[in-house]
Amino acid sequence: MKKITLSATLAVVALSLAATASAQVKPEDQIKYRKAAYSFASWNMGKIKTNLEGTYNAAQVKAAANAIAAVANSGLGALFGPGTEKAIGEQKTAVKPEMFKQGEKVAKLAGDYAAASNELVKAADTGDAAAVKAAFGKVGASCKACHDDFKSR
Amino acid sequence: MKKITLSATLAVVALSLAATASAQVKPEDQIKYRKAAYSFASWNMGKIKTNLEGTYNAAQVKAAANAIAAVANSGLGALFGPGTEKAIGEQKTAVKPEMFKQGEKVAKLAGDYAAASNELVKAADTGDAAAVKAAFGKVGASCKACHDDFKSR
Repeated sequence: MKKITLSATLAVVALSLAATASAQVKPEDQIKYRKAAYSFASWNMGKIKTNLEGTYNAAQVKAAANAIAAVANSGLGALFGPGTEKAIGEQKTAVKPEMFKQGEKVAKLAGDYAAASNELVKAADTGDAAAVKAAFGKVGASCKACHDDFKSR
Repeated sequence: MKKITLSATLAVVALSLAATASAQVKPEDQIKYRKAAYSFASWNMGKIKTNLEGTYNAAQVKAAANAIAAVANSGLGALFGPGTEKAIGEQKTAVKPEMFKQGEKVAKLAGDYAAASNELVKAADTGDAAAVKAAFGKVGASCKACHDDFKSR
């Protein structure tokens, strides 16, 4: 019961953010910016992976974790406004149109991604590579959960 | 004299970051990721502008400021590695090749951008729109300073 209430609250927050900001950004730019956001996050995920597999540079991992969390907490819902469920001209998108019909599920996934990213920042702040590895795995799982449902290959 | 020493230090830091991370990212992906990083920053600059011109939402401004600072502090130098001074296949770039020959100047500009972004985060944390407006102007000026020298139109 509590979980349903939380999801519903997140959905309302996500929709309200979307309503506030999507009005100001053209649909094709929403697609451009959301692809940029995920691409920037992906680069930073790659940096953490490289650090975990090679020499661990705590400052670089902290900066990368902050970047991933900044993306997760940036109100990405605003970039999935009406009309952005498919390509607009040259601006392609890998999103599945189903995503736009499942607000509550999307809000839960977005909330999980933000929560996992915030935990990654905390782990990175400790400088403990084992803690970062565990937190990093959870962020990756939150990415995959959404991709599995809503990203076409 | 102090200023020259600082710039030289920044240049060394920037080059060292570049050497560490560019080895792992293919040149065409470096171009893709740096464009994504600036595009993500640009979206967040736009959100702050909208907040300053309309209804001020402190939480949104804080998140946007964090996003801009996360980009500025992400070690972008690693995305300007050898071979990325011009387009690679479909991956276009607006960078001027001169940028790759002026390491000290670039390090100064990158340092200014990071410093201005960090000040924007501090201003956003206060929730004072006037302070944010002033800090935002300085971030914009730091963007422009680099674009004027190193971005083709």
